[in-house]
Amino acid sequence: MSDVPANHPRALSLELREKIEYYRQLGIVANAGPIAHGRGEAFDYLLGETTPTPVLEDIYTAAALLLEAKYPVISVNGNTAVLAPKSLVSLSRKIPAKLEVNVFYGRTGEREKKIADYLISQGAPEVIGINAEAKVPNLHSARMRVDKNGMALADIVLVSLEDGDRTKALIDWGKKVISIDLNPLSRTAVDATLNICDNVIRALPLLEKAVQDLRTNQQRIKELTAKVNNDYSTARVLRFLNYRLRNLATIKNEFSILEATEKHINFINSLTKSVIEEGYFYPQSDEFNTADYMRSKLNSESTYVNVLLARNNPCGFIDGDVRDDHKFYLNHLAIDKRYRGFGGGKILLEKVEKLAVIKDCQKIVVKIFTNCHAAQALFLKSGYTIEGFIDCIKEKHNLIVMVKKVIL
Amino acid sequence: MSDVPANHPRALSLELREKIEYYRQLGIVANAGPIAHGRGEAFDYLLGETTPTPVLEDIYTAAALLLEAKYPVISVNGNTAVLAPKSLVSLSRKIPAKLEVNVFYGRTGEREKKIADYLISQGAPEVIGINAEAKVPNLHSARMRVDKNGMALADIVLVSLEDGDRTKALIDWGKKVISIDLNPLSRTAVDATLNICDNVIRALPLLEKAVQDLRTNQQRIKELTAKVNNDYSTARVLRFLNYRLRNLATIKNEFSILEATEKHINFINSLTKSVIEEGYFYPQSDEFNTADYMRSKLNSESTYVNVLLARNNPCGFIDGDVRDDHKFYLNHLAIDKRYRGFGGGKILLEKVEKLAVIKDCQKIVVKIFTNCHAAQALFLKSGYTIEGFIDCIKEKHNLIVMVKKVIL
Repeated sequence: MSDVPANHPRALSLELREKIEYYRQLGIVANAGPIAHGRGEAFDYLLGETTPTPVLEDIYTAAALLLEAKYPVISVNGNTAVLAPKSLVSLSRKIPAKLEVNVFYGRTGEREKKIADYLISQGAPEVIGINAEAKVPNLHSARMRVDKNGMALADIVLVSLEDGDRTKALIDWGKKVISIDLNPLSRTAVDATLNICDNVIRALPLLEKAVQDLRTNQQRIKELTAKVNNDYSTARVLRFLNYRLRNLATIKNEFSILEATEKHINFINSLTKSVIEEGYFYPQSDEFNTADYMRSKLNSESTYVNVLLARNNPCGFIDGDVRDDHKFYLNHLAIDKRYRGFGGGKILLEKVEKLAVIKDCQKIVVKIFTNCHAAQALFLKSGYTIEGFIDCIKEKHNLIVMVKKVIL
Repeated sequence: MSDVPANHPRALSLELREKIEYYRQLGIVANAGPIAHGRGEAFDYLLGETTPTPVLEDIYTAAALLLEAKYPVISVNGNTAVLAPKSLVSLSRKIPAKLEVNVFYGRTGEREKKIADYLISQGAPEVIGINAEAKVPNLHSARMRVDKNGMALADIVLVSLEDGDRTKALIDWGKKVISIDLNPLSRTAVDATLNICDNVIRALPLLEKAVQDLRTNQQRIKELTAKVNNDYSTARVLRFLNYRLRNLATIKNEFSILEATEKHINFINSLTKSVIEEGYFYPQSDEFNTADYMRSKLNSESTYVNVLLARNNPCGFIDGDVRDDHKFYLNHLAIDKRYRGFGGGKILLEKVEKLAVIKDCQKIVVKIFTNCHAAQALFLKSGYTIEGFIDCIKEKHNLIVMVKKVIL
């Protein structure tokens, strides 16, 4: 069916797209199915197309809820049926739980029948929900229909890619709802008893394994179901996404570091001046902000001046010196305002550590004005500890001394 | 055409979905169009469905590039044509730039013709690209075709929702490419001369306005085109997304604060004990970690003990006291390990400020062990400044004193 070469970097993603479109043409996937699939693709992309550790924990909790239930039902729509047919069948046997077709669009009986037939062709012994006549209270239109021997009796329903209104209505009806939804902010994900923020093609096999692992462990099942907390689960997923984006939001590959030369002197002096104006550097008398003074630093054997480049534009620098006490004194670290917050500071500090190692230093020492909160946060994150405090009577602010041990 | 009630919270989004599906059935949007639209929806959702400020700057830079060009061309595919037909026509007149149909799937001539006819019905004087015979070097299959009077001659091409390979091939061919792509990590967004990370329905009208604003300002056009830096633009967008997610990744609405009572004593003492074990609290002799001692604190007039609840479970606390010097001394702030990193600390510190205001304090003072980096970062972020340092000869770590002025 697929023309995608197996070695294409996006092969799996492209195959799933083709599957969705192919089964839409066959009338198994709804016309609205592809758009929903596209949304899922985007969220999965941000997730890194793997199941994050906190979500794996949620999957075990979900398995415990399913095992504890008296009448669990797995709700199936067109997209899920074609994305993971064998996993659905296998999970329903393992729990065991009934498979019920549950479509949102065009509930004419025809599409339900096609979905059911497809699942039966993939090994399902029974699929219910065709021409369903029971009703979910407080829902209107075709989507209120559920099977009187399925969801109507269920104490827990596993849904995937579910409509927000229906999730809410099922909860209000007194059912527990476990959802599988890649958008952690969707109404379904928020309102469910527990959302599994994962791709169904990964989540269903993992859920089956969790059911198998937990089945005989009543103690563990009780522990897990006692601490279901969907808000906490969602917050953990968002925090995970947040960490991923933070790492992506660097221009790290575009940053490079160079030993400073004559041609960087103007840049360094002008950046120094503007950081002094911001109140973050110790004010210097004019004699120290001259090309000659900087030149003498560049020529000194014990002083190290390095420039941070974004592409080829200088945007920051460090200077430090090594003294007889085996310490590396970081005298200045500055980044042009426009380039702050992209990971450049971290790269400069990595350079400092390399220099300290090469020069056989045991500690790196830096003094920072108390008003310079962003720099303090950067050094804290990089493992520096506050080890001292210097009263600066003449200045507006005092200095703190931060130190990091060098690991050789 | 639409059944969506105008007051539905997702009305615009639902209408656009219906449009995409409607025009797919008419053969203007490709069968793969809806999935791409779904991806865009998801990214737009994360963006907050508004144009972020840094992207607005990119739009002005894009306008400058278009105005500076000798032969700008606007490339149009099915999705863009049906999402923003009038904006495309209007922008092409304003620059001016030719509109060229440029489809990825099923380049049979038929769909191009339909797209062109549709744009002409929406006011376009001319649409090129039908039965195009020029070729993009190094591309294969139907997508290599471009109009010999359009993209083949262009020095800059504006594309939206473009295929990654084609963007790359256009760049390699020596064209500048401005893309409009909501996925800041897509190959098109990364490889383009400049990507506008925005929804086409918002970006195109803004781009038109920018063209109008800049047209007569040659000086500004030069400044903007001189500093095109797509990596920097992308990093800013990712940073913006990162901030949004960080704010979403709280369980803030689930957090609440209560004045501590008798029933919280066990919780407070046990959390205190575990934070001492972590090495973040000053070790206490046993007499201070008893129910009686805590009870005496709860009954003291000048001491304030508050508990942080996640839903209804206690997960953190603060205690502080007000002294005659009009300072609020925050003696302890602790959060259960499992609940760190979700914004609970910030909420406790907001409570501290409220208490300080009520009690007419001018400053809040807290002492923190030097090894407790996470707490230091929290206080720095909340506006506290390091104002002192206490050598603790008997302890493993020293203390720093952090202070925040209370704004009444």
